[in-house]
Amino acid sequence: MKPANIYPSADGLWTGLRLATDAGTDAAIVVVEGAIRWVGARSALPAEFAGLAAHDGGDSLVTPGLVDCHTHLVYGGQRANEFAMRLAGATYEEVAKAGGGIVSSVRATREADEDTLFAQAAPRLEQLLVDGVCAIEIKSGYGLSLEHERKQLRVARRLGEAYGVTVRTTFLGAHALPPEYTGRSGDYIDLVCREMLPALAAEGLVDAVDVFCERIAFSLEETEQVFQVAKALGLPVKLHAEQLSDMGGAALAARYGALSCDHIEHLSADGIEAMRQSGTVAVLLPGAYYTLRDTHLPPIEALRAAGVPMAVSTDHNPGTSPTLSLLLMVNMACTLFRLTVPEALAGVTLHAARALGLQNTHGAIAEGMPANFVLWNVRDAAELAYWFGQRPLRTAVRQGRICISFPSPSGRGQGEGLRP
Amino acid sequence: MKPANIYPSADGLWTGLRLATDAGTDAAIVVVEGAIRWVGARSALPAEFAGLAAHDGGDSLVTPGLVDCHTHLVYGGQRANEFAMRLAGATYEEVAKAGGGIVSSVRATREADEDTLFAQAAPRLEQLLVDGVCAIEIKSGYGLSLEHERKQLRVARRLGEAYGVTVRTTFLGAHALPPEYTGRSGDYIDLVCREMLPALAAEGLVDAVDVFCERIAFSLEETEQVFQVAKALGLPVKLHAEQLSDMGGAALAARYGALSCDHIEHLSADGIEAMRQSGTVAVLLPGAYYTLRDTHLPPIEALRAAGVPMAVSTDHNPGTSPTLSLLLMVNMACTLFRLTVPEALAGVTLHAARALGLQNTHGAIAEGMPANFVLWNVRDAAELAYWFGQRPLRTAVRQGRICISFPSPSGRGQGEGLRP
Ligand SMILES: [Zn+2]
Ligand SMILES: [Zn+2]
Repeated sequence: MKPANIYPSADGLWTGLRLATDAGTDAAIVVVEGAIRWVGARSALPAEFAGLAAHDGGDSLVTPGLVDCHTHLVYGGQRANEFAMRLAGATYEEVAKAGGGIVSSVRATREADEDTLFAQAAPRLEQLLVDGVCAIEIKSGYGLSLEHERKQLRVARRLGEAYGVTVRTTFLGAHALPPEYTGRSGDYIDLVCREMLPALAAEGLVDAVDVFCERIAFSLEETEQVFQVAKALGLPVKLHAEQLSDMGGAALAARYGALSCDHIEHLSADGIEAMRQSGTVAVLLPGAYYTLRDTHLPPIEALRAAGVPMAVSTDHNPGTSPTLSLLLMVNMACTLFRLTVPEALAGVTLHAARALGLQNTHGAIAEGMPANFVLWNVRDAAELAYWFGQRPLRTAVRQGRICISFPSPSGRGQGEGLRP
Repeated sequence: MKPANIYPSADGLWTGLRLATDAGTDAAIVVVEGAIRWVGARSALPAEFAGLAAHDGGDSLVTPGLVDCHTHLVYGGQRANEFAMRLAGATYEEVAKAGGGIVSSVRATREADEDTLFAQAAPRLEQLLVDGVCAIEIKSGYGLSLEHERKQLRVARRLGEAYGVTVRTTFLGAHALPPEYTGRSGDYIDLVCREMLPALAAEGLVDAVDVFCERIAFSLEETEQVFQVAKALGLPVKLHAEQLSDMGGAALAARYGALSCDHIEHLSADGIEAMRQSGTVAVLLPGAYYTLRDTHLPPIEALRAAGVPMAVSTDHNPGTSPTLSLLLMVNMACTLFRLTVPEALAGVTLHAARALGLQNTHGAIAEGMPANFVLWNVRDAAELAYWFGQRPLRTAVRQGRICISFPSPSGRGQGEGLRP
């Protein structure tokens, strides 16, 4: 772990690149003071840049840095034992008795101090960074009280500083009903609206506000109460919507100009139309679909037809999606959801950035934007989706700095960490 | 890439280990001259070993080195473009016209020389090694002529030497009918039986013999012809059996004492009973099941009830399972096939070794066996199955040598390859 400013600068002329959108072209990128100054075919490089310090891309594919726009990365403990028990035939009650379920994550999160939460989340973040992630959303929602939600969000901020990665914090106090509020959902939402959200926003810990709107979580009315507070505070909203049933959450979120509606397996035609009109991004989470062995696909074809932008994310969380690879989600979006390769790649770059309100700084390689790009040890963009379980990263440039750089492919993996 | 003998010796006393089978115990392993001399609870360590040079495991989980017992790792080209075309809605004919399908892999394999095949397979092998693989089976079957099958098998042998990994070669000349034999399946099997297999066996390139027995490939009778030659040559057999339909291949293979029957989605009760009696391993290939979006599960419950050992493998191949992670297959075996965590882990160690006839040297940490083990940056064995898309390897010991060693978890991933 190194503070961001010790990473080497990426300034200079990057050559030997293959652009995902323009296969076959020998491309170049010019970085000046951490920002993209020029990108295009090498043959069209303006003479003024020809003398800049050179970085040889070695004929690798270059894409924008990836954006993981929906994660619950910071929590206490993990639930591998619950995973194993379920496979061994344990009933829901037996798992609960052994301390499983979301309640166990809430307990472990509350019991952990900030340093512990940081130490547990850091190796998870590192694995996502090695997948080329340059910006990540991290939600609260396992603290479920002012003190413990604050702790989660502070750790999220610290992770961003320590790793030089863009972190967007999302307050998800309305994730689940904490055990001490059983049967008093309204009281808990009051707490969220009157105390937790205003206090955390005032501390600068909240970039967006999210709610889990579902029969097993919070109602449409409760969701709107939270959205009203967010609106009053000038914070954008997002929604865990229509995962298990069509609650009408997407239409509500769209009325509040939501950045994104996430999950949306049971999204209705009305919901799609509302999202289209509000420019809300549909965030697809194939890791949870896969882990839950869901069979109800999100309405991909209708979203495509309506032109609703689709993002793809890990939904990293200890219960339903303990995945540590956003590239694997690209493959799953293709294999399970039948997204095309360009759709899946836009889903972890352009549209994921938009789902976080970061479209002006992330998700594209364009003049004037900060240099956030990744060089991959593959030749064609389709290979990023095709090989699954791979780790093809060669170089990661985040915010104009070279944050990860592996030796050449044949040196990779084998002994790369071998310290003689 | 380094020749095996330059890796440091693993001889000495390994402490600070957690055994997968005995969680919570502070365990130790003694390695002498590349072999396991002792394994058990640290507290029971015989005094004679206490003074050996120490390797601190840092409280990591230790498992046997993984065994990938079914791969088609060596081939020319790749088929990412075909993957992308299919998602974009191309018909089977359009894909074929653009040069897709197995024929394209045969063509690319034939066109490539040995060095090219080696250079293309090496980075794939490296990714599997970083997953803790210490032994791997590599099949021929994309050459489909004496000259080109030889080339594939020679590359497989060279990979083993270059990386210090145990490679078992399997001759799969009867993988598909080469285009020049269209309509002359019998003639091709004659070539396989009279020329290809005897010649390659004489050259020491064949450790086992496999056939793809299926309506779209070779018949039961053709399969038996190949098995008879294998038997005459003293070579063990394996079979791609009952993947698309129940051909009765498993029972045939069992009569020939097959090491394994692989795929077996449509395996019958008779086939299971035959495999039980012959001690044949059932090799499960969840990566192909996933990629093909198959819905017909192998008869796991019946295999379990019969006590047929189940192995799990990548089936790495460019068409139906381009995966580069055996650990991901452990997760998929659990998530998709509902194997328990101990079953899935035995499936990539103990039973996978048996599927290759390597049970005396691989797949277990036991006194007298060569030191093949892996230290992981997790505490519990269940975590190897639970986190998916992960790369948790800390140290890989193969054949008594420390072949991969990463720095501590928080140093991993982040800048591990950053050369200042
Ligand atoms: Zn979520
Ligand atoms: Zn196969």
